[in-house]
Amino acid sequence: MESSPKIPVHTYTVDLEPIGRRIAVEPGTNLLSAAQRAGVDLVAACGGVGICGTCLVRLVAGTLTPPTMTEEEELGTERISSGYRMACQAEPLSDVRLDIPPESLPVAQKMQVEGRENAFVLQPAVIPVDLALSPPELEDLRSDLTRSSQALEERGMPPLQGDLAAISALSEELRAHDWQVRLAIRQNDNHSQLVAVLPPGTPLLGLAVDMGSTKLALYLIDLNSGATLASTGVMNPQIAYGEDVVSRIAFANKSENNHRLLQTRLVDTLNEVIHTLCVQAGKRPAEIVEAVMVGNTAMHHFFCGLPVTQLGASPYIPAVTQPLLIKAIEVGLNIASSGSVYLPANIAGYVGADHTAALLASRANQDGRTFVLVDIGTNTEISLAHGEQIFTCSTASGPAFEGAHIRDGMRAAPGAIERVTIAGGEVQTVTIGGLAPVGLCGTGILTAISEMLQNDVLDMRGVFDRSADRVRTVDKRAEFVLVPADKTGHGRDVVVTRKDVHEIQLAKGAIRAGIGVLLDEANITVEDVDEWVIAGAFGTYLDLASAQQVGMFPAVPLDRFQQVGNAAGVGAKEMLLSNQKRDESLGMIGRVQYVELTIYPDFTQRFVDAMYF
Amino acid sequence: MESSPKIPVHTYTVDLEPIGRRIAVEPGTNLLSAAQRAGVDLVAACGGVGICGTCLVRLVAGTLTPPTMTEEEELGTERISSGYRMACQAEPLSDVRLDIPPESLPVAQKMQVEGRENAFVLQPAVIPVDLALSPPELEDLRSDLTRSSQALEERGMPPLQGDLAAISALSEELRAHDWQVRLAIRQNDNHSQLVAVLPPGTPLLGLAVDMGSTKLALYLIDLNSGATLASTGVMNPQIAYGEDVVSRIAFANKSENNHRLLQTRLVDTLNEVIHTLCVQAGKRPAEIVEAVMVGNTAMHHFFCGLPVTQLGASPYIPAVTQPLLIKAIEVGLNIASSGSVYLPANIAGYVGADHTAALLASRANQDGRTFVLVDIGTNTEISLAHGEQIFTCSTASGPAFEGAHIRDGMRAAPGAIERVTIAGGEVQTVTIGGLAPVGLCGTGILTAISEMLQNDVLDMRGVFDRSADRVRTVDKRAEFVLVPADKTGHGRDVVVTRKDVHEIQLAKGAIRAGIGVLLDEANITVEDVDEWVIAGAFGTYLDLASAQQVGMFPAVPLDRFQQVGNAAGVGAKEMLLSNQKRDESLGMIGRVQYVELTIYPDFTQRFVDAMYF
Repeated sequence: MESSPKIPVHTYTVDLEPIGRRIAVEPGTNLLSAAQRAGVDLVAACGGVGICGTCLVRLVAGTLTPPTMTEEEELGTERISSGYRMACQAEPLSDVRLDIPPESLPVAQKMQVEGRENAFVLQPAVIPVDLALSPPELEDLRSDLTRSSQALEERGMPPLQGDLAAISALSEELRAHDWQVRLAIRQNDNHSQLVAVLPPGTPLLGLAVDMGSTKLALYLIDLNSGATLASTGVMNPQIAYGEDVVSRIAFANKSENNHRLLQTRLVDTLNEVIHTLCVQAGKRPAEIVEAVMVGNTAMHHFFCGLPVTQLGASPYIPAVTQPLLIKAIEVGLNIASSGSVYLPANIAGYVGADHTAALLASRANQDGRTFVLVDIGTNTEISLAHGEQIFTCSTASGPAFEGAHIRDGMRAAPGAIERVTIAGGEVQTVTIGGLAPVGLCGTGILTAISEMLQNDVLDMRGVFDRSADRVRTVDKRAEFVLVPADKTGHGRDVVVTRKDVHEIQLAKGAIRAGIGVLLDEANITVEDVDEWVIAGAFGTYLDLASAQQVGMFPAVPLDRFQQVGNAAGVGAKEMLLSNQKRDESLGMIGRVQYVELTIYPDFTQRFVDAMYF
Repeated sequence: MESSPKIPVHTYTVDLEPIGRRIAVEPGTNLLSAAQRAGVDLVAACGGVGICGTCLVRLVAGTLTPPTMTEEEELGTERISSGYRMACQAEPLSDVRLDIPPESLPVAQKMQVEGRENAFVLQPAVIPVDLALSPPELEDLRSDLTRSSQALEERGMPPLQGDLAAISALSEELRAHDWQVRLAIRQNDNHSQLVAVLPPGTPLLGLAVDMGSTKLALYLIDLNSGATLASTGVMNPQIAYGEDVVSRIAFANKSENNHRLLQTRLVDTLNEVIHTLCVQAGKRPAEIVEAVMVGNTAMHHFFCGLPVTQLGASPYIPAVTQPLLIKAIEVGLNIASSGSVYLPANIAGYVGADHTAALLASRANQDGRTFVLVDIGTNTEISLAHGEQIFTCSTASGPAFEGAHIRDGMRAAPGAIERVTIAGGEVQTVTIGGLAPVGLCGTGILTAISEMLQNDVLDMRGVFDRSADRVRTVDKRAEFVLVPADKTGHGRDVVVTRKDVHEIQLAKGAIRAGIGVLLDEANITVEDVDEWVIAGAFGTYLDLASAQQVGMFPAVPLDRFQQVGNAAGVGAKEMLLSNQKRDESLGMIGRVQYVELTIYPDFTQRFVDAMYF
C-alpha cells in the first residue's frame, strides 16, 4: 500500500521570547492568535478587537504586515519605530522572532489570596469512615459494596452508594490494603455517598477557589483541622481571550470551540495549581474529596461550561442561580475521581457566588450591624445590609482600576507606581518591587489624581490647570507628567491624561452612585452605616484617604472602614468546612433584594453627578 | 526548524478477506492480534491461547510462520495442506492475504430477541412534562433553571435539579423553542431530576438491553405506550477476546488497556446498534431518556468497567450486586446526555441481573406455582421457586451447546445442522438456512446424540457400538459419520466423536445435577414442579424430547415445559417500563437463597451420576 503524497502547507514560525515558545502558523494568522495557540497568554484587555493596546509585542527579527491605523493611533510613531506592535493587528510575512514585554504577560503580579477570617464550627460535607472488614470466603459471598455498606449500617449510617469510579476503587483498594480502608463519605438523607477510598488514616482534604476574572485564588484545606495547608494566586488564563467577562462572552459567542476553550483553559490551569499545592503540602489530588468554587456569574458559567450568550445581552439572565453540587468529573477538575464541586448560589447575572461568599464572610447574616460591602472590580458589586434586608447591586466601574483604558496604566506588576505624593511641585512615587517606574496600577492612578486635586492641578470637574507645573499640552489636550522619561524603566514619560482622569471619574462615579441608590432604597444616610467593608485585591491595596478625596467613598471617619482582603475566598473556605455555612448562605440569599441599576429611575443623573470630584 | 528523520519501521500488511480490511503489523504479531487491531472480531473461543481451534483462517497469498504443534494436533495434515491455520498461532513472514471462513466470523447467526411477554401497568421512571414559560424581562430576572423549577412547583412537583449538561440544554432549548419545551423528568423524593430537554410533544424513549456473553439483544421502546419500536440482536464484539467470560476475564487481567478495551468495544457496538434502531424507528438517540441493561455478572462488570479480577478466582466475588442507577455518560452510552442506565441486582458472581430479569418475567414473585427456570448457556443458571423461597444456582455447563469443544461444532449460523433423524441406518439433517451442512450447532449435536441413543449407536455410558452403521475407528477412537464429505458444504465429513459425546455428557450432567440439588434443597421431587421454564436462545430452539432423552431434563410430561425465549430481555423491558417492576425484582431477590455448588457436599458424585444417559 502506498501512502498518498502530502501537499506541503506554507507556514511561518513565530518565536515568542523570552518564554522560548515556537509555533508554526499559516499566513493571515495574527500574532495574538499565534500566541494563544502556542499557549502563551498575552494580556488582551479588549479581547483582541484592537482598542486597548495591551497586547504589545516587539519585533526582533523577520517581517510583519505594516502597522495598521489602529496601531498608529494607539502606539504612536516612536514606539512603532522601536519595533512595538499590537499582537492583534500584526501578521507574519516571514518567520519572526518576537520579544514580549513584561507588561504584556499576566504573571508576577500582586495577588491577594488572604482575607479576614472568622471562627466557626467545623462540619464538612464529606467525612472519613475507617473500615476493617472480614474478607469474603465461600460461606460469605457478599459483594464488596454490600460488605462495606453493611459495615456502615452496623454503625447506624445509611446504606452505601457510589458511582462506578467509586465502586471500582472500593474493590481495588479493599484488596490492596488487606480489607482495611478509609472511606470518604458524603452523608445524604437516605444513603451514604462514596466519594473516595483511601488508605486507612489518610486525612481528607478540601479545595476552596475564588475564580476572579483576573486572578484565581486557591486554598488547599485539611477538612479535619480547617488548616490551610497551601494557598496561592495565579492569573486567570482566560485573560488571553479578553480582559473582562464581556469580552470573553463575545469571544465564546463566536463558536462552540471558543466556548469550550475558555472552560478547558481555566480547568487546565486550576489542575496545574492543584498539583503544585499538593506537592507543596506533600499530598495527592486524589485526597481532595470536595471543592467549593466561587466566582462572578460569568466565571461560574465559564467554569461549568454553561451557555453564556444570554448573560451577555440585556436582561442578562443566568442559566442558573441556585447552588449546584456537581461531579468534579463533569468539568474535568482533577480531585478525587468521585469528588464533587459545590458552587454556591449566584444572585444575578452580574452578582455572582463570589459576592454570596463575601457576604457570608462579612457575617451579613449574624449581627444587627448596618454595613456596606463593596467588592471593586471591572464590575463592582455592592451590598447594603440593614435590618432584615440586604440590598445588592452591580455597577459597571470598568477596568480602569486594573490599569486598562489608562494611557500608562498597567496591572499591579513590578514597576507599577502604587503610591504618589505631590508636594511643592515635587512628585514622589512608590513602585511595586521598588523598580524604576513603567506605568500606573489602579491604586497608583487613584492616589495620583487625589494628589493632583489637592494640589489644584485638577478642578472638581476633572479639568487640568494648564498653567500648573508639569502640565503640558499635546494635540490640544492637557496631560500631567508624573515621571519624566529619564527616570522611568522604559525611557518614556509616564503621564496622566485628561482621558485617564475621565476614566477614573467614570469608575468612581459608578461606585458612588451605586452606594447612593442602595442607601436610598434602605431609606438611610451614610451616617447610619456602622461599617464600610472593602473587599477584593484592589480594595486591599487601596488608599482609603485618596478614595475619599476623589469621592469614591463618602467622607466618614476612616475607622469605619475595613479592608478585609479576599472575603470571597474566606467565604468559600467557610462553606467548604461547614454544611451549616452553606445553609446560612442560602438563608442570606433569601434576604437579598437585587436592585437593577440599568432600569433604576434616575440612575443616569446620579451617575453623572457622582463623577464630580 | 527541522523535523527529525523517521526511522523506517518494517511492517507486513495483513489483508483480511472477504471483509476487505487491511492492517500493517510488525513482525512477530500473530494473525488473531492483527485481526483484532483491524477491528475484525474472529471467533476465539479460548481467548487466543491455542486450545480451541475456532479462530480458523485460510492463507491465500504470502508466507506465514510454519504450523505449530498445536495446529498439527487441532487441524490435522489435510486441512493444514489446504491452507488452514489457527490465527492465534500463525505470524506473517511477508505481506499476506487471508480468507476468513464463515464459521470464524461471529455474524449472521440465529438470534433470539423475542420472549413471552406479560401485561402490567406502565409506570416508567422518567416522565414527560411540557412547559410554556413567560420569557425573562427586566422586571423578571429569574434564572432559566429557577423559572422552570417554579413552573414545576406550581404543578405540585418537587424543585428541578439537573447536571451541567441538562442545565445547559435547558437554557439553549428554551430559547430555541420560544420558551416551550418538553422536559424529561426523573421524579425523586425531594427533587425533579432533569434528564433531557426536547421539543414540545416529543415521545420519550427507553432502551432495554440483554447483554449475553455471545449476543446482545436491544429493544427500543416507546415509554408512553410500551410499544417496541425496533429491536435486534447482534454478536457481542467481546467474542474476539474470548468466547466465554472466563477467557475474557483472563484477557482483562493482562492489562488495564485490555480491561478498557472490553468495555469500549462493547459500548461502541451498543452505540452503533442504538443508532441503527433509531434510524429504523425514525427517532434520535437523544430521545432515549433511560436504559435498562441486564447481563451475567461478568458482562455487567465489563459494561460498567468494574474490576473483574476477583470475579475470575474463587470465591468469585462481585464488586457489586445491588441495583445501580448510573449516568449513561459514565460508561459512554449514547443516549440523552443526562440519561441514566438502570442495572438491576446481580445475585452472585455467576448469577447475574439477566437471571433476575428472567425470574421477574417468569412471575416468580406472583403466583403460588412451583417452577424451575433454566437459562442454558456456558454457565447455566437455574432457579427453583417453591412457596416463599427461590433456590438459585449456577452450573458450569460449558460452551458445548454453543458448538465449542465439539469436533464439527459451530454456532447457530447458516449451514449448521440443527435437527437430526436416524432411522434404519439413514441419517436426515436439517440445517439453518437449508444450506449444505458444514457443522453442528448445539441443538444439532443434542438431537444427533438423542437419535444415536435411540438407535443403540451409543449406550448409557456414551460408549459407541463399533459394529453399528456409520461408526468407524480413527486413531483407535470411534466416531459416527453424520454426513459424508460428498454431501457437506466444505467437502469434509461431519462427524460425532466420542469426545463430542463426552462434552455433551458434561454439559447435560451439570444441568441435571444442578436441578437435583435445588429440588433436594426445597425437599421436593420433579413431580412437584408445576412448570419447567426454559429460557434463552439455545433453550428456545432446543428439542425438548431430545433433551429428555439424553437426560438433561427429567421425563415429565412435555406440556409442563415452556420455552419462553429471551426472558431476560422481557424482564429488562418490564423494568424499563415500570418502577413497580424494579421494586418487585428487589423483593424477589430478597427471597433468593443462592446455593454454591462448588462447595455443595456431594455435588461431584451427583454430577458424575448425571452424566449417564
